[in-house]
Amino acid sequence: MFKDATLPEIENVMQQAWKAFHVYRKMSLKHRADFMRAIATELEGCGDAMIQTAMRETNLPEARLRNERARTIYQLESYALACEKGDWLEVRIDTAIPEKNPPKPDIRKMLVPLGPVVVFGAANFPFAYSTAGGDTATALAAGCPVIIKAHPAHPETSQLVADAILHAAEKCEMPDGIFAHLHGASFEVGKALIEHPYTKAVGFTGSLTGGKQLFDWANQRKVPIPVFAEMSSINPVFLLPEKMKTEAAEMAKLYAGSITLGVGQFCTNPGLIIGLEGKELTLFVEKLGKEITKIAPATMLHTRIFKNYRKKKDEALKQSGVDIVAHSEIKPTLNQGSPTIATASGQTFLSNPLLHQEVFGPYSLVIRCKDMKEMLQVANKMEGQLTTTLMATENDIRIHDKIVDAVVNICGRFILNSVPTGVEVCLSMQHGGPYPATTDSRFGSVGADAIKRFARPIAFQNWSNDLLPDELKNENPLGIWRTVNNELSKEALG
Amino acid sequence: MFKDATLPEIENVMQQAWKAFHVYRKMSLKHRADFMRAIATELEGCGDAMIQTAMRETNLPEARLRNERARTIYQLESYALACEKGDWLEVRIDTAIPEKNPPKPDIRKMLVPLGPVVVFGAANFPFAYSTAGGDTATALAAGCPVIIKAHPAHPETSQLVADAILHAAEKCEMPDGIFAHLHGASFEVGKALIEHPYTKAVGFTGSLTGGKQLFDWANQRKVPIPVFAEMSSINPVFLLPEKMKTEAAEMAKLYAGSITLGVGQFCTNPGLIIGLEGKELTLFVEKLGKEITKIAPATMLHTRIFKNYRKKKDEALKQSGVDIVAHSEIKPTLNQGSPTIATASGQTFLSNPLLHQEVFGPYSLVIRCKDMKEMLQVANKMEGQLTTTLMATENDIRIHDKIVDAVVNICGRFILNSVPTGVEVCLSMQHGGPYPATTDSRFGSVGADAIKRFARPIAFQNWSNDLLPDELKNENPLGIWRTVNNELSKEALG
Repeated sequence: MFKDATLPEIENVMQQAWKAFHVYRKMSLKHRADFMRAIATELEGCGDAMIQTAMRETNLPEARLRNERARTIYQLESYALACEKGDWLEVRIDTAIPEKNPPKPDIRKMLVPLGPVVVFGAANFPFAYSTAGGDTATALAAGCPVIIKAHPAHPETSQLVADAILHAAEKCEMPDGIFAHLHGASFEVGKALIEHPYTKAVGFTGSLTGGKQLFDWANQRKVPIPVFAEMSSINPVFLLPEKMKTEAAEMAKLYAGSITLGVGQFCTNPGLIIGLEGKELTLFVEKLGKEITKIAPATMLHTRIFKNYRKKKDEALKQSGVDIVAHSEIKPTLNQGSPTIATASGQTFLSNPLLHQEVFGPYSLVIRCKDMKEMLQVANKMEGQLTTTLMATENDIRIHDKIVDAVVNICGRFILNSVPTGVEVCLSMQHGGPYPATTDSRFGSVGADAIKRFARPIAFQNWSNDLLPDELKNENPLGIWRTVNNELSKEALG
Repeated sequence: MFKDATLPEIENVMQQAWKAFHVYRKMSLKHRADFMRAIATELEGCGDAMIQTAMRETNLPEARLRNERARTIYQLESYALACEKGDWLEVRIDTAIPEKNPPKPDIRKMLVPLGPVVVFGAANFPFAYSTAGGDTATALAAGCPVIIKAHPAHPETSQLVADAILHAAEKCEMPDGIFAHLHGASFEVGKALIEHPYTKAVGFTGSLTGGKQLFDWANQRKVPIPVFAEMSSINPVFLLPEKMKTEAAEMAKLYAGSITLGVGQFCTNPGLIIGLEGKELTLFVEKLGKEITKIAPATMLHTRIFKNYRKKKDEALKQSGVDIVAHSEIKPTLNQGSPTIATASGQTFLSNPLLHQEVFGPYSLVIRCKDMKEMLQVANKMEGQLTTTLMATENDIRIHDKIVDAVVNICGRFILNSVPTGVEVCLSMQHGGPYPATTDSRFGSVGADAIKRFARPIAFQNWSNDLLPDELKNENPLGIWRTVNNELSKEALG
């Protein structure tokens, strides 16, 4: 239905984005925030048609899609607020000391936008991590034009959202080129976008193969650019002994829900559960298996994701030492992901790297460690993760501090006695983590700190007050927090 | 005199660093800061022998080296203060809202250290950007062990500084492996260090070729790691017309000093001066030439740097359309860099990319533009820079706003009516810039914000107050600034 963008079209879009950048980056924080809020309003006004289209393209249920659109609107509104508030600008002012030898000049630093940002939307979040999602919202807040490469699994939904953004851009008198929307089922479109000299950063949510490819292209450019790819995570859950003594059954129930939520199609899906061999773990596995058999298979996002789920799951299940515990007792129909639990010993896991890989879907592997030493080996063998969870009493944590230490080094979010699914949109959220969870552990893609991915510091030395940007002026006309001579302050300079 | 580190030695050092990391990252901010201050004290106590060694190895004059060591001590002390103050931790706390649907969990985020950092010292700063320099100080503040690859041009100085650090480590009861010092004239040592799985980040100051090589190695790892390489900059200076009307002669004198300071061996050396053809520029060039003839050649850091200077300068001078304006009238002796000024038209510069490259040494090229349109073309053609300078009246800046706009996009520090040489150590400093000035424009290598290069955020979800790190506890026992429910505060949580 939609044709792939041609090279001349891409060239034209990037030229427009570059022109728009020079206008947009000088627009006030308030103007940017108003634009973001206008996008939110447009999305709200899109009504049922958009939801129906998304349901048809993604097989996701109506309530989930309505919630996701509401979340997308909340993201735009809360990042707009953060944009205006200006904490993210990291303003530092050091005033001159002329009597110093040599004299100390007046220097004032703030973050400025990088330039046009190319965003690759996610298959599993047609709204919140796609066309008007977190990457787009934070890039716009930073002062960067956005070019969307629509996800080929939901091109019509993406087009509807893009139209809403373009309406908002018109209403807010944004420069042409502030936002562009391109289709591209072929990888050539993405490659051309990343290699274009006017592209200054990339946002991506998807597979490890896809994200790593973008990262490599970006680094092989004449001028390398940052890629923020959120890719692969199995989100390990450690069941510690004291906690297991009393709560094995409750935890099994809790995790059956988390593993199968949204047909397991969340990047924070718990794909690995690690416990200590013994009667508590046997009870946990039994209960978890029983719960899973009752959960009905459901249609996955699209055929490719379903086929990939089946292939990766089958591959995992046929590894030596891996036993199936349970699967849904209801027979799946076409493209339906069937909830499945398997188990393996600590040794099996430690000696087989294939079992460390993500199986995207409603699947989880329970690892039975023979002792705490082996559990620690498993923890130390873990690759970078978006999240790691401990199910533990306070005592467990104090006694098994080496497990805690190992986990701190591999994850972006460290959860205690809860489930990793569910990513709260707030400033304290870290949705990111060491590679291969993402390509840059120093940033995350949820919460207003994500704005800083698309900005860099510039220091103005020896400028007169009148010529400085408002953010750096003596009067502090925007009323933002600034570090003045090493102290945080909202005051005007004397 | 010093043997290159062998692969088993490197393996051993990295194993030790990894062990040390697990101890050091949990030491308090105060303990880290005390260690940094102890290093400063040791350096102070090293006295004359260290200065004499550095003079012999680098050919730099005594006063310069004394100042540089004092600066290094200041860096350690001021970053220690910043480390303890904790602003760099970017603490964010969002408290739970149990009545929300779904309930909002308690989430608290802070920066944690990446792990062992490999630092490649600079040839041109044996103290301030080398063994105990900015990269080492900021990595230690972040909580990372440091492995130094000594610069082969000053191995003895580097060894003396390393010994001072190791003394301080012992006095402060730091874990073995907190700091290591390796020699390596061959690139193999650097490659092995970067490819080691326990290396988590790299700091580098040097050439574009060197830095780009490290960057590529780091990105080709199974688990890519960040490289902060400060590399190449010609630090363009734009002479705007109104300013030139009255101050051409003074500016020529000022710039003769800046171009030849330290035999031009600063990364912020002004290598390119851009003006408008006419009698003012003629006067400027004439005065600048006259000043330059009077400045004596001086011995460069080492033979390779001298040979490189001569080669790159000769290459630039023999380009079609490039004319020599003046050189020092005093004949240079062995390894002495002779101050030299050349000139070319705007068209010559625009059509010859070789002239955009850094000539490391006391050399500058004056570009004569035929009109402001051509000057804008020159500005737009510029690669990423550490600094760009405007010599301009307020009027100039308002009229020629397009030049200002072009410059904002290419530099890390934007200077008005001064010289780029001289990098103040303070929080507002940005010593960094778009590629090829550095490999990551989002960070700089001077000022306490540089600590953040070696840290990444982690969010603790649903942890009880007792189990949290001090930085995140309700009581705020460290008294640091934290963003609590979106508002900056030093208060304890109620």
